[in-house]
Amino acid sequence: MNKKRVVVIGGGTGTSVVLSGLKQAGVCDLTAIVVVSDSGGSTGRLRDEFGFLPVGDLRQCLAALADGKHQEDVRQMLLYRFNKGNGLSGHNLGNLIITALEDLKTSPGKAIETAGYIFRINGNVYPITEQNVNLVIEYKDGSVRIGEAHLDDPTLGGQIIKAIKLSPHAPIYYKAAQALKEADLIVLGPGDLYGSLLPNTLVRGFKPTLQRSKASFVYIVNLMTHYSQTHGMTASDHVRQVTKYCGRKPDIVIVNTGIISPKVQARYAQQQEFPVFDDLKDSSEYEIIRQDCISQVTTKQDINDLVPRSLLRHDSQKLATMLISLLS
Amino acid sequence: MNKKRVVVIGGGTGTSVVLSGLKQAGVCDLTAIVVVSDSGGSTGRLRDEFGFLPVGDLRQCLAALADGKHQEDVRQMLLYRFNKGNGLSGHNLGNLIITALEDLKTSPGKAIETAGYIFRINGNVYPITEQNVNLVIEYKDGSVRIGEAHLDDPTLGGQIIKAIKLSPHAPIYYKAAQALKEADLIVLGPGDLYGSLLPNTLVRGFKPTLQRSKASFVYIVNLMTHYSQTHGMTASDHVRQVTKYCGRKPDIVIVNTGIISPKVQARYAQQQEFPVFDDLKDSSEYEIIRQDCISQVTTKQDINDLVPRSLLRHDSQKLATMLISLLS
Repeated sequence: MNKKRVVVIGGGTGTSVVLSGLKQAGVCDLTAIVVVSDSGGSTGRLRDEFGFLPVGDLRQCLAALADGKHQEDVRQMLLYRFNKGNGLSGHNLGNLIITALEDLKTSPGKAIETAGYIFRINGNVYPITEQNVNLVIEYKDGSVRIGEAHLDDPTLGGQIIKAIKLSPHAPIYYKAAQALKEADLIVLGPGDLYGSLLPNTLVRGFKPTLQRSKASFVYIVNLMTHYSQTHGMTASDHVRQVTKYCGRKPDIVIVNTGIISPKVQARYAQQQEFPVFDDLKDSSEYEIIRQDCISQVTTKQDINDLVPRSLLRHDSQKLATMLISLLS
Repeated sequence: MNKKRVVVIGGGTGTSVVLSGLKQAGVCDLTAIVVVSDSGGSTGRLRDEFGFLPVGDLRQCLAALADGKHQEDVRQMLLYRFNKGNGLSGHNLGNLIITALEDLKTSPGKAIETAGYIFRINGNVYPITEQNVNLVIEYKDGSVRIGEAHLDDPTLGGQIIKAIKLSPHAPIYYKAAQALKEADLIVLGPGDLYGSLLPNTLVRGFKPTLQRSKASFVYIVNLMTHYSQTHGMTASDHVRQVTKYCGRKPDIVIVNTGIISPKVQARYAQQQEFPVFDDLKDSSEYEIIRQDCISQVTTKQDINDLVPRSLLRHDSQKLATMLISLLS
């Protein structure tokens, strides 16, 4: 029997969580379609210096799909962050590896494919486009900023984002389009709405491909708002933006009902980040799955992290169980 | 039938040439025992900044032993040299990978072993010692310099080296000792005599292990003298030093008889480097194999190289054929 084909769209930690859960379950063929408009941190430095596709999200997805006897070594190696060394400090080894492969190979797609072979990746990792693009962010107050890194800048927090665009226009990577066409299930999120998820929808060819795909389309709502992206947005606000950018309503929306401890909430509140309020109304428009999605293990913050990372995560096994139940 | 066990001692390009020829032949189990007193270039920078074992020679041997369908991709990736990027420029990716693994693993030996698994290395690569050591160079004029990098400094050329030592004293890595014990053939060289070959003999336990090993001991004489290491030394001078440092005469000495073109000789002569004069006398002390060992393909100089590299190489297939004939 052919395995069901699951395509996960996004890029960051949220996507890795979905991928690693599904990989461990071992019952589906996995493809990650990865945002390539990142411009911050190690990725941003490499992008500025080498001019290749941004590598950070690709690295995270490769690490999540590493398989076989030495998967933990591969994962640790790809995610390793240098904490000293003139010019090296802050770089992830996986970012450097993908950068080198982008230089050695004829195209970014080939580079990632080669990384996939070398590191025994179980599944496919495709950039959403092979073109180097920047994110253009238009705020409600009329201001415009170029560069995804602004979406992680707390000094720009609290503003309402009116629209995001890509500059220049870029076509979808043909292998990503093919994967969407052939998918049985397409999963968007969890992840930064404007930073990791919606930029994927902006490439030429994405919308019609998603619209025509016979796959069920699942959107996983984030646990928390993000001060410089989705401040004050409820679950239905999230779904509305997803529908608008994708040109297709999700068939299924997954919302967390697990309780986030007051202690963790307080820590997030210091950064003006709050649980996404579930105001979704049952309707015939989409199915709502309300379940506890929270990881029981609190993720330790990496002391070498240059930007603060979430302490709270979706649980990879819980999500995998829900998603696999949708395949039968 | 068990494959014959061949141990190649050295580290640099010469050792890689021997390893890749023997790997391609596919008839023996290969182990590389690698010098770890390097202190120049990318390796030296990483060593200074991280304090781990020097990585450059380990990388070259891993690259030479990469095997399987994607061996060329792995080789290119490990040998890739960044030519831009603040602080990255000049670093080899393979050096950064081994540095990260040295940080992630409990010992340098484990780090290299892990790299071997991840990159599907066909054979073993062992550092001669797991301790961080420096090379101490005593010149005939009484001056002393610490650091292997001096052996590549042409401003120090023409001096006669009286002795080399390691600081601090260090024991042989037990797996390297085991490999020497169990070997059918032990090959020293080609390679920088004082930089890549003889430092291996200085670790505690090397000499008695080599002396007791039942393996045939082969020494491959370099094609050219090295201005800051072996200026003016003949083939018999080389063999004399090898015998002195190893505490054992080679059973077989391989000397090149192939003609080095006047054009190539002229280029080397500009750097005060000349063909090693073959003054070896037939005797019962060791067998002399005189054959054309020269690579027909002129190696292009890498434009990104920070230090000048040899244009002339031993031919990996010719050496492999000679060495394999010694196994039967």
